[in-house]
Amino acid sequence: MNVDILNPSSIAIIGASTNPKKISTVILQNLISGGFNGKVYPVNPKYEEVLGRKSYPDILSIKEDIDQVCIVIPAHIVEEVVDQCIEKKVKSVVIISAGFKETGKEGKVLEENIAKKLKEANIRLIGPNSLGYINNIDNINLSFARKNTGKGNIAFISQSGAFCTAILDMACEDDFGFSHMVSIGNKADIFENELIELFDNDSNTSAIALYIEEFSDGKEFVKLAQKSKKPIIVIAPGSSEKAKEAISSHTGALASSYDTITTAISKANTILSESSVELYELMKFVSSNRIPKGKKVAVITNAGGPGIIATDNIEKYDLILSELGEKTTKKLFSVLPDAASVKNPIDLLGDALADRYDQAISFCENDNEVDSILVILTPQLITDIVGTAEKIVKIKNKTSKPIFVCFLGNHDIKNGVDLLKEYNVYTSNNIEATIKIIGKLVKYNENTIKSDIVEVKDIKTSSKYIRDVKDCLTSEMVILPDDITENILKEHDIPIPQQIITPHIENAIEFSVNRFPVVIKATSKDLAHKTDFKAVYLDIRTISEFETKFYELRESISKVTGITSPDILVQEMIVGNAEVFIGANREGDSQIYEDEGKGFGHLIAIGQGGIYTEIHKDIKHILIPTSREDMLQALDNTKLSIVINGFRGKPKLAKEKLLDMLENIQRMLISYPQIITMDINPVMLTEDKVVAVDVKLYIKD
Amino acid sequence: MNVDILNPSSIAIIGASTNPKKISTVILQNLISGGFNGKVYPVNPKYEEVLGRKSYPDILSIKEDIDQVCIVIPAHIVEEVVDQCIEKKVKSVVIISAGFKETGKEGKVLEENIAKKLKEANIRLIGPNSLGYINNIDNINLSFARKNTGKGNIAFISQSGAFCTAILDMACEDDFGFSHMVSIGNKADIFENELIELFDNDSNTSAIALYIEEFSDGKEFVKLAQKSKKPIIVIAPGSSEKAKEAISSHTGALASSYDTITTAISKANTILSESSVELYELMKFVSSNRIPKGKKVAVITNAGGPGIIATDNIEKYDLILSELGEKTTKKLFSVLPDAASVKNPIDLLGDALADRYDQAISFCENDNEVDSILVILTPQLITDIVGTAEKIVKIKNKTSKPIFVCFLGNHDIKNGVDLLKEYNVYTSNNIEATIKIIGKLVKYNENTIKSDIVEVKDIKTSSKYIRDVKDCLTSEMVILPDDITENILKEHDIPIPQQIITPHIENAIEFSVNRFPVVIKATSKDLAHKTDFKAVYLDIRTISEFETKFYELRESISKVTGITSPDILVQEMIVGNAEVFIGANREGDSQIYEDEGKGFGHLIAIGQGGIYTEIHKDIKHILIPTSREDMLQALDNTKLSIVINGFRGKPKLAKEKLLDMLENIQRMLISYPQIITMDINPVMLTEDKVVAVDVKLYIKD
Repeated sequence: MNVDILNPSSIAIIGASTNPKKISTVILQNLISGGFNGKVYPVNPKYEEVLGRKSYPDILSIKEDIDQVCIVIPAHIVEEVVDQCIEKKVKSVVIISAGFKETGKEGKVLEENIAKKLKEANIRLIGPNSLGYINNIDNINLSFARKNTGKGNIAFISQSGAFCTAILDMACEDDFGFSHMVSIGNKADIFENELIELFDNDSNTSAIALYIEEFSDGKEFVKLAQKSKKPIIVIAPGSSEKAKEAISSHTGALASSYDTITTAISKANTILSESSVELYELMKFVSSNRIPKGKKVAVITNAGGPGIIATDNIEKYDLILSELGEKTTKKLFSVLPDAASVKNPIDLLGDALADRYDQAISFCENDNEVDSILVILTPQLITDIVGTAEKIVKIKNKTSKPIFVCFLGNHDIKNGVDLLKEYNVYTSNNIEATIKIIGKLVKYNENTIKSDIVEVKDIKTSSKYIRDVKDCLTSEMVILPDDITENILKEHDIPIPQQIITPHIENAIEFSVNRFPVVIKATSKDLAHKTDFKAVYLDIRTISEFETKFYELRESISKVTGITSPDILVQEMIVGNAEVFIGANREGDSQIYEDEGKGFGHLIAIGQGGIYTEIHKDIKHILIPTSREDMLQALDNTKLSIVINGFRGKPKLAKEKLLDMLENIQRMLISYPQIITMDINPVMLTEDKVVAVDVKLYIKD
Repeated sequence: MNVDILNPSSIAIIGASTNPKKISTVILQNLISGGFNGKVYPVNPKYEEVLGRKSYPDILSIKEDIDQVCIVIPAHIVEEVVDQCIEKKVKSVVIISAGFKETGKEGKVLEENIAKKLKEANIRLIGPNSLGYINNIDNINLSFARKNTGKGNIAFISQSGAFCTAILDMACEDDFGFSHMVSIGNKADIFENELIELFDNDSNTSAIALYIEEFSDGKEFVKLAQKSKKPIIVIAPGSSEKAKEAISSHTGALASSYDTITTAISKANTILSESSVELYELMKFVSSNRIPKGKKVAVITNAGGPGIIATDNIEKYDLILSELGEKTTKKLFSVLPDAASVKNPIDLLGDALADRYDQAISFCENDNEVDSILVILTPQLITDIVGTAEKIVKIKNKTSKPIFVCFLGNHDIKNGVDLLKEYNVYTSNNIEATIKIIGKLVKYNENTIKSDIVEVKDIKTSSKYIRDVKDCLTSEMVILPDDITENILKEHDIPIPQQIITPHIENAIEFSVNRFPVVIKATSKDLAHKTDFKAVYLDIRTISEFETKFYELRESISKVTGITSPDILVQEMIVGNAEVFIGANREGDSQIYEDEGKGFGHLIAIGQGGIYTEIHKDIKHILIPTSREDMLQALDNTKLSIVINGFRGKPKLAKEKLLDMLENIQRMLISYPQIITMDINPVMLTEDKVVAVDVKLYIKD
């Protein structure tokens, strides 16, 4: 995207009027009072003049070229203006008006028409259903926000305009600013990814924040975020079933599954925020502080109780209470009173004045065992609140170690807190929330030194049976027949039990006789969805037992399907030391891995198999394409890995072979993107082999 | 406790001086300016007069009787004053001074001496290491808090004085008040339980809040809280290992295990808060609102995005998004614009003024499908912030349905928020935190209609082998020999496999011959702590196999223990459809169930057994004594219960028999409180029976 879209040299505002309460007027007002130094053209046939400027009946009446047109008129007359924009050859359009995709079918068609026309004319579009945008670097406020802030270094991209207004209202109170804020609305053209790329390369922006209900191109988003040089903070509501319904009625978007979003956000190494307040706090912190380099936190407090609360939360959020160096302890010992605690959490005692804080913070700042410092103050009798704040500000200005401050209270602490805020010191009255934020920042930093980014083109594909697969595609999801499944699995070196599919008992017995014990099953094709049907006989050990079971199974299949001589699947029986589940789901259509394919692609799930899959839900997710290392990490995060790694004197299982299988499954899924769902349960894992015993592949276009 | 302790008619303050920065002076000042209408006696030999009042050299020089003495002098001279208090026959003492148990051994002895002397003299004690107390009902502020609030209806009991000051500082800003605030410090005499009982019966108090690092008498606390007529809100930091260390250096307390605390707090049906801010918010809410009667929440918003955040969190915190009644939907439809959402979350749209809020809230208030109402406002262009707040206040004053308000922002919303606060409407800028609070309140309410409270005296005990058990007690924890364990288990009808303990192979074979398959093991006595020793042979099916294994086991036991003919345990082998783990730990000493026994008693753990016990940690806890119903609830909260209840067509297992076993175990533990740890893994569960296969009982005094 060209940066000009957020920095046009001239803007026409369609619908601008003299009514100060109208959105169009507010936008014009914001633009002018914000100090925009390009040309501004109010367009409204009803007026000769608006806010002291000549008003035009339409854009075609304006003689000069126009860079950008901002449309603030009812939805049903927007298309007409869009046609004029095309005729006028403007460069970009911002549609503020609501009444499009978010209102239903009719609105969706209208929106698609407009977007298509603009695209063909090579005109970029922000919106519709947008609050507009603010570019504080170039003094452009083309929004109807009631407030704007000063310049800052955070770029905020939001799918919700109201969310922008709430964040702006918080920021105003704190003198906290943004470089840009873009309300992308229904995202008919420009969506988050282009803006992320833009801001990642913008020297005025040091971090990017996102409010996203639906990722327009998940695969691309992950790649962009992985490559980003700046922290990206994301709030992505809409994970619950009910929320998905609400989103759909609100922006017409189709939300991704919770598993996909959380896996994607983690893979993309963004900082995931769980509430608007947390998003805001994270923005504030990253805007003026370095990110902690590690998990070790020193806690300095003037009261024992809050120190204990901090200690609990440091454990809860996977951080480490620093073991202070001997030097630090000695120095603390030499300056603090006897009753003070020189161990972390450092308790300066209730009569601590600013000097004790000053000393303790300075000592910790110089201790290599400390990655970040949490300063806690309770307003006790002689506590020097402002004095302590002053000391903290001084140290903050010269240290590279992040300092987090919790002054507990609200009334007496106010002057101290105001001072801290003025100098961009992170401050909160909530110890737990603060430590949660430290935890998120540390995790972000840990992941920043990333392994190589794997792209689809890096994966060696093979799709000899693509014709067979495509022949099976229908408009609905269908199960792939066992023989094609077998071919595809073998093509990708995914071990399955030795097996035969035959309607003839002689062939079946010939196969089985040297392989007992065996298993017999109905084939997927015949009985895929009949889960209550007894379609599997395990552990058959003799020919006579085999005959009995074979006829029994044949009869019951015939009864249900009407086929007199159905195919029967006979497999050697594999006994594993552990049963593994490997599943996959595709998000996006089957063109997902091609250039224009949008969505997140396949999400592989791995965890404990057998009946406990559903009971313990010990499942971790892998968003492909990815590296073997990431697969290992997901596997190691399952509890199953405790068994695989050898538990309580039991042998280690064939972990490397399981990883081979995961890599092969990745190749298979990318080779056959028609696979929409894969279900392998169980994969049998022994000390030296791994076998996919029961594989079901479902396809859809 | 006599209420007089917080409402004395006369108070002497030891150490009061003319130095306005000294704690003693501040206390005197607070007492006088707070409006105490009893007699006040400054005591300090250095002065003739303090703050315009005659100062006495010591309390014995005061002619009148003294109700309460407040001691604010260095720790080492406190005992002397205590002696004088005894001589003077005062009724109660408040020791503000620090320097006791929290500083180590010496301080602990000093504290214990003082407490003992006072107890013998029948004088009650608050502290030491206390901020003092505030009784706003009778205008007594005997504390050195820098701030006090107006009267309120929450009683706050805190083990941390600094925590009191932080909460007071928050409350001052909000004009939020307390009935009482007691800083119990080191709790040498008066601790939380007595105060809970007191405030539960105090008509000026409607809810009780607690900051507790260590429960002085857990069993009693649970009983009191279960019986309490008022909500009890608890913050109980110190669950992490590191925090336990910190607590010990801070108040000298020994913290309970995390499992015990959380189980106790849940059984006691208190509202557990996880941060100081949350504690404060909960206090504010319960002080002036009814608690939601159920899970169903209606969300009213002027923006889609925040509505989605709310929806996500309603699911996350186990609440239900109300399915609005048809009547409500129709009424909403008739007054809201077309583009609005009349489904929950109700989206009033960005141009909503106060009237739309007013109507929507009123409709929801009259809908039986709504238990509480969450009102969200974002400050959009024409949003009527104060007007909306006014409407909410009006409805709040006449409705019995709880209303929670989230105005998102900070600057423009301020006037609205201030108005809401003035009228005690719950307001927050954090949707997630608010919904979390609703979740906690709803859970509290659900549990309030409690099953009968079970007390130790309700349990039928039996302890025929108490002599044998007591004979085994040493100063260390020891394992109870298998034969005594067997006797005790049989005494309490806890089924174990048929078994024999013998050193003679002939006897062993005689036992086994009609019972194959059998299991042979070393006895607990010999090899309890040798976990790497192969001490179990499973599934022995023939006499010759038996002989081989018997000799093998005997030889290896001999090698380790030196006993040439060791006892061997032979059991019938039980194959279960599920393996269950049942464990127990005692907190408190073995007098725990007697009158003076302090601690929480036994905590039973139940969950999946076998090797997966440690892997999945699918364990729930039961604090005894309790009802079968509560045991069932704990069991049903394990994932194991999915298997027990019959999963995927598998048979249901003998759940009632498992509950019988739990009840019998409860009887056994109360009959033999010497049992400090119990470990049964596995308990084999089949369709019709339950057998405790491997039982280890450890005892300690």
